[in-house]
Amino acid sequence: MQPHHAAIQDHAAVAAPRLRDILDAAARIAPFAQVTPVLRSSGLDELAGCQLAFKCENFQRVGAFKFRGACNAVFSLPGDVAARGVATHSSGNHGAALALAAKLRGIAAHVVVPANASRVKRDAIARHGARIIDCEPTMAARDAAVADVIAATGATLVHPFADPRVIVGQGTVALELLRECQSGASTGLDALVAPIGGGGLLSGCAIATRALSPRTTLWGAEPATAADAHDSLREGRLIDDRVPQTICDGLRGHLAPITFAVLRGHLEGVLLASEAEIIAAMRLLWERLKIVVEPSSAVALACVLREPRRFAGQRVGIVLSGGNVDLDALPWKA
Amino acid sequence: MQPHHAAIQDHAAVAAPRLRDILDAAARIAPFAQVTPVLRSSGLDELAGCQLAFKCENFQRVGAFKFRGACNAVFSLPGDVAARGVATHSSGNHGAALALAAKLRGIAAHVVVPANASRVKRDAIARHGARIIDCEPTMAARDAAVADVIAATGATLVHPFADPRVIVGQGTVALELLRECQSGASTGLDALVAPIGGGGLLSGCAIATRALSPRTTLWGAEPATAADAHDSLREGRLIDDRVPQTICDGLRGHLAPITFAVLRGHLEGVLLASEAEIIAAMRLLWERLKIVVEPSSAVALACVLREPRRFAGQRVGIVLSGGNVDLDALPWKA
Repeated sequence: MQPHHAAIQDHAAVAAPRLRDILDAAARIAPFAQVTPVLRSSGLDELAGCQLAFKCENFQRVGAFKFRGACNAVFSLPGDVAARGVATHSSGNHGAALALAAKLRGIAAHVVVPANASRVKRDAIARHGARIIDCEPTMAARDAAVADVIAATGATLVHPFADPRVIVGQGTVALELLRECQSGASTGLDALVAPIGGGGLLSGCAIATRALSPRTTLWGAEPATAADAHDSLREGRLIDDRVPQTICDGLRGHLAPITFAVLRGHLEGVLLASEAEIIAAMRLLWERLKIVVEPSSAVALACVLREPRRFAGQRVGIVLSGGNVDLDALPWKA
Repeated sequence: MQPHHAAIQDHAAVAAPRLRDILDAAARIAPFAQVTPVLRSSGLDELAGCQLAFKCENFQRVGAFKFRGACNAVFSLPGDVAARGVATHSSGNHGAALALAAKLRGIAAHVVVPANASRVKRDAIARHGARIIDCEPTMAARDAAVADVIAATGATLVHPFADPRVIVGQGTVALELLRECQSGASTGLDALVAPIGGGGLLSGCAIATRALSPRTTLWGAEPATAADAHDSLREGRLIDDRVPQTICDGLRGHLAPITFAVLRGHLEGVLLASEAEIIAAMRLLWERLKIVVEPSSAVALACVLREPRRFAGQRVGIVLSGGNVDLDALPWKA
């Protein structure tokens, strides 16, 4: 059984995922995943000075894009491997996503959950039938607990983002968004902006977008207080030793070698927004689009609103990554 | 110029609206209104013990179904009549809807707003360019203020619900919902449940549903603390002298003669839910569908959840009427 870090390094060494892998993933997850709607708002367009197309992954199963990658990984496994179950560590949506994907395939899911995970996300992991293993909220404790469960069960690790099967699953988000925006009289997207944490979503979207719409510029959006991806790409070295503090609980992870490699080649840049700007953008999305999105989803709109000149007059696709939020602890509550 | 109450009585005497009028309205508002999505949730289906199809009018322009009726009324007016503008009284979504419809036609809208209207809804009326006329929060003061503005301007009254043009506009909600639920392998709706305040939405939906899907049962959903429609239909007389207290600010009105007449003939019954049940249902919709709906929208789900036997195993269409809510004053906040 491979230890956890060795598994991540190995993934960076395998062939880089391509559009064909994303198309395969789209077919594989089609029976299970939602084709989520794309919403628009003339009021938000006016505010932003550009035409926004919001890809609503808050409507995805388990309330986040994470279901796509987890589902693709689980249904990619050969039968005998799948039968031993899957395992991961997650403080959030990936855990629930893997739990549901495993349930749909009829196999076991073991999810290591750090003690600082939100109640709402912990409950979702349990509701979808995973076995929860508690651990201390450090990466070392998380890695050790996952290694233990894999040694004991033979389960396959499905990492939240450092896994090509997961990355190409997330890439189906851009596949659908580009298709929707290129249909009819539309001329496609000038730019695509997605939140960046571990980089799985944006890596998958980058691969799809580069292949299908080369002229579309690609942007990551990151909390300014968790700018590790921004700094990694600017400095050309993977920074993974910080402990980011941000309201965006989905964006506290660092890039992995595989996502760092994909994004270095494809990204125009990473934009930053303050915590206050993220909260204001989240509230705007609730008020204007009438949808529930979590803070991590709002960072892309926050970044676009703070740089009106960069996107002036453009058609901008924005990925709203998820909608799992504690309604008793909204950030604009005193 | 007719005084306000005479105008309402006259409407009851005109020919009852029919499916053809709703189809005409659908064509008339098509360039302006959204065809709103229908959402489903396997989790909510499990809770309710039936298959729910949620028609999401919170995604309609101005955030409520009211835009349909107001738009149909405004674009039904002959040019010379329209040129004198439109007027109404409204504490909420109808005012914003009329304001936007008038702006789209390039005519003036005068909206009488009682002092107890919510800040969010008042702001929306102003944002869409209406002239706001303040008044005391009594029906007498509202009627008098509307009569004054009509006398002074020659504007046409567009009542929130006691107007056949408005009723058939609202009927396009059911038109779209029935079409969506009858497409493909689906066998259509066994029941349709919509909130009832003045009865405009449900009257329009009843006319469309009786014509297109006679087997579908029709239900109103009303707060138990504002049961005037329930009591009116049970007792066979229009009760319009109560002052309902409910969190559902869109459902504090009474039936008018025209909506009473339509609903008497078509409704299976009016279901009731407590304020606590409505708030719980509203929260469920936010958590599970990831959408923002106002309390008036939640009453239909609340009624279905409290009577699991009545709808067991059925396909039930639920109209979510709007999404305009003050995010600083959520009902589950202490």
